[in-house]
Amino acid sequence: MVNIELVKKLSQKTETKIVMVVVDGIGGLPNPDIGRTALEAANTPNLDNLAAISSCGLVEPVALGITPGSGPSHLALFGYDPLEYEIGRGILEALGVGLKLGPSDVAARGNFCTVDESGIITDRRAGRIPTEKNRQLVEMLRSVTMEGVEVILEPGKFHRFVVVFRGQGLSGDIEDTDPQHVGERPKNAVARSPEASRTADIVNKWIAGAREVLKNERPANMVLLRGLASLPEIPTMSQAFKLTPAAIAGYPMYRGLASLVGMEILETGLTIQDEVNTLKTHFEDYDFLYVHVKETDSCGEDGDCTGKVRVLEEFDSYVPEILHLEPDVLIVTGDHSTPAVLKGHSWHPVPFLIHSRWVRPQGAPGFGESMCAQGNLGVFPSLGALPLALANALKLGKFGA
Amino acid sequence: MVNIELVKKLSQKTETKIVMVVVDGIGGLPNPDIGRTALEAANTPNLDNLAAISSCGLVEPVALGITPGSGPSHLALFGYDPLEYEIGRGILEALGVGLKLGPSDVAARGNFCTVDESGIITDRRAGRIPTEKNRQLVEMLRSVTMEGVEVILEPGKFHRFVVVFRGQGLSGDIEDTDPQHVGERPKNAVARSPEASRTADIVNKWIAGAREVLKNERPANMVLLRGLASLPEIPTMSQAFKLTPAAIAGYPMYRGLASLVGMEILETGLTIQDEVNTLKTHFEDYDFLYVHVKETDSCGEDGDCTGKVRVLEEFDSYVPEILHLEPDVLIVTGDHSTPAVLKGHSWHPVPFLIHSRWVRPQGAPGFGESMCAQGNLGVFPSLGALPLALANALKLGKFGA
Repeated sequence: MVNIELVKKLSQKTETKIVMVVVDGIGGLPNPDIGRTALEAANTPNLDNLAAISSCGLVEPVALGITPGSGPSHLALFGYDPLEYEIGRGILEALGVGLKLGPSDVAARGNFCTVDESGIITDRRAGRIPTEKNRQLVEMLRSVTMEGVEVILEPGKFHRFVVVFRGQGLSGDIEDTDPQHVGERPKNAVARSPEASRTADIVNKWIAGAREVLKNERPANMVLLRGLASLPEIPTMSQAFKLTPAAIAGYPMYRGLASLVGMEILETGLTIQDEVNTLKTHFEDYDFLYVHVKETDSCGEDGDCTGKVRVLEEFDSYVPEILHLEPDVLIVTGDHSTPAVLKGHSWHPVPFLIHSRWVRPQGAPGFGESMCAQGNLGVFPSLGALPLALANALKLGKFGA
Repeated sequence: MVNIELVKKLSQKTETKIVMVVVDGIGGLPNPDIGRTALEAANTPNLDNLAAISSCGLVEPVALGITPGSGPSHLALFGYDPLEYEIGRGILEALGVGLKLGPSDVAARGNFCTVDESGIITDRRAGRIPTEKNRQLVEMLRSVTMEGVEVILEPGKFHRFVVVFRGQGLSGDIEDTDPQHVGERPKNAVARSPEASRTADIVNKWIAGAREVLKNERPANMVLLRGLASLPEIPTMSQAFKLTPAAIAGYPMYRGLASLVGMEILETGLTIQDEVNTLKTHFEDYDFLYVHVKETDSCGEDGDCTGKVRVLEEFDSYVPEILHLEPDVLIVTGDHSTPAVLKGHSWHPVPFLIHSRWVRPQGAPGFGESMCAQGNLGVFPSLGALPLALANALKLGKFGA
């Protein structure tokens, strides 16, 4: 249904410009109080009018029934098959705290934990120590140095931190050291492939050093590592699709995801207004501009349907400014659904709108789940978003004669 | 669009319960007299109201334009790619007469036929001998014994019977002995692979024995075998999807199909009432319950649109009892369409309804082909039914971070 290899072959450089707005977690389920989804309940006159002159549908991020994380669901929208390019948990965590990663970095998610005198784990989260204590412990861990390898540490919330091993010839093909159960010892880092065996040794030495440094601490006297991973080998959007892409995203993880596919990361703030201002400033410099709206997802995760409605209305108020830039193609969609009633990501397909001179318009105004289910694009994979954008920007040549 | 390998990886055991009702041949075409399909013409207030609070669509059993048999179309609904797991004709016939098959059984469909003095086939069906005569002949064939191999015989209707060869190391990878034409001799059983050569010898010896036993009979003085096959190697639904599944089906073939994927086969009767009673009795013991309604298909095959309407109305009257059990997920669909005007299975996609707390409801009441074509699930492969069921039962973890 979507053929990215063909799209790559047919891509050509043109002057036309694409704006893709990813409203994170935009899709939802009816709120029991009002019988409508947040998107349907929100007063969004600009999106509604835009939908009437756009082509609409629902996109499926990964596959039927599959609830995606932010990594795969964004990759799909950027034109990369999320099943072909898997992003390790450690990589995503490192991107999430704003670390810039290189090709031979190995990143992992760390937990402080508690072990007893014989080394058995008694609490995998060390009683969820305060974040301030975490910062102190991470500072102590920075004293553990390794010859030939730089170790980069960033504290997270409570017991969580991120560690990146940076050096020549490292591989992230390594099992977790977290056994996932109390009553067991932390595992050794074990290489899944011969290329990773030296890295596993390095990780084990660092863990031994960390244990030594933490030995007199209570309750956080040991560390567990999960999701060790290297960057996926992924062509840039310039290589794959002949685009000059830029990302406008206030939050680190989305800046990181965009950097994975070679987008220029533009400085911006956390608000929609900041992001739209950045879009205006840099509109002339790129031909693909990704804009990320975060708070719809945060409200969904919090079960806050009212908040989600408010963010959607706020975004709606900026739609005229975006249209005023006259992009050749404007897409408004989401990476996945985050229904407030589920308080998390879900498998439900996501409202999608594409506006250009060359779409078949829907006609009646309105933008929401039910309307998009009747949209003239039907239900299609998120991976089809970029091909459609390129086609509508007249950036794809003809296949065959 | 559907990724079963991913679904398997993400499956997790939970307490939630799924009921999948397969109304055999539910889909149809408008009856010329009334301008509506049987499902649309039937007075089904319970299904109509259920559809309004469910998500609907059309499922495609195998591929666009493909008319499926019962085997592939059921496998797809159970989450098995029907192109990956092919069920040999002999296996399906054996299941259809209620034989229980083991992994090294080889089953075939048999015909009594007529050969002349020189062994040339003059009638491939032996004049469609009466079923009573068939029973006598099958009893005679039971005298043909083979060392080390048990031969199990079941008479069918007219000239048809089923034969199962049971023994160590048998393989069903063997060509038909039926040349499909009169004027030729019955073929020898020929192995398609070296593993099957011993089995082919056994089959040929048995056929020689059968010919000897039948030599003085007229017109049925010889046998032809078709569709020789072993059971497909297929993981159980417990292995594949971490389900504890049970089948409620009055007719042997559907019990047999369910047993192929490791369902527990519950004792039940032939009526919908019997089956619903069985569902009530065993509802607590399983987390996936497949219920098969047969007569819609039988009426379709007979060209009896009125009968099909009646069966659909009968099924509709039991919907409240099923809902009263409060399954977390209820699916009502069919394995394929059986339009009465075609008097057989067809390629038309099949009405599909899924009800759970987590669906996007359709809104307006009604359940039928036209309404499902407007459903918010769109047209999707039958193979997606199980992933959707698992997702709605919150039995699938998240993909990626």
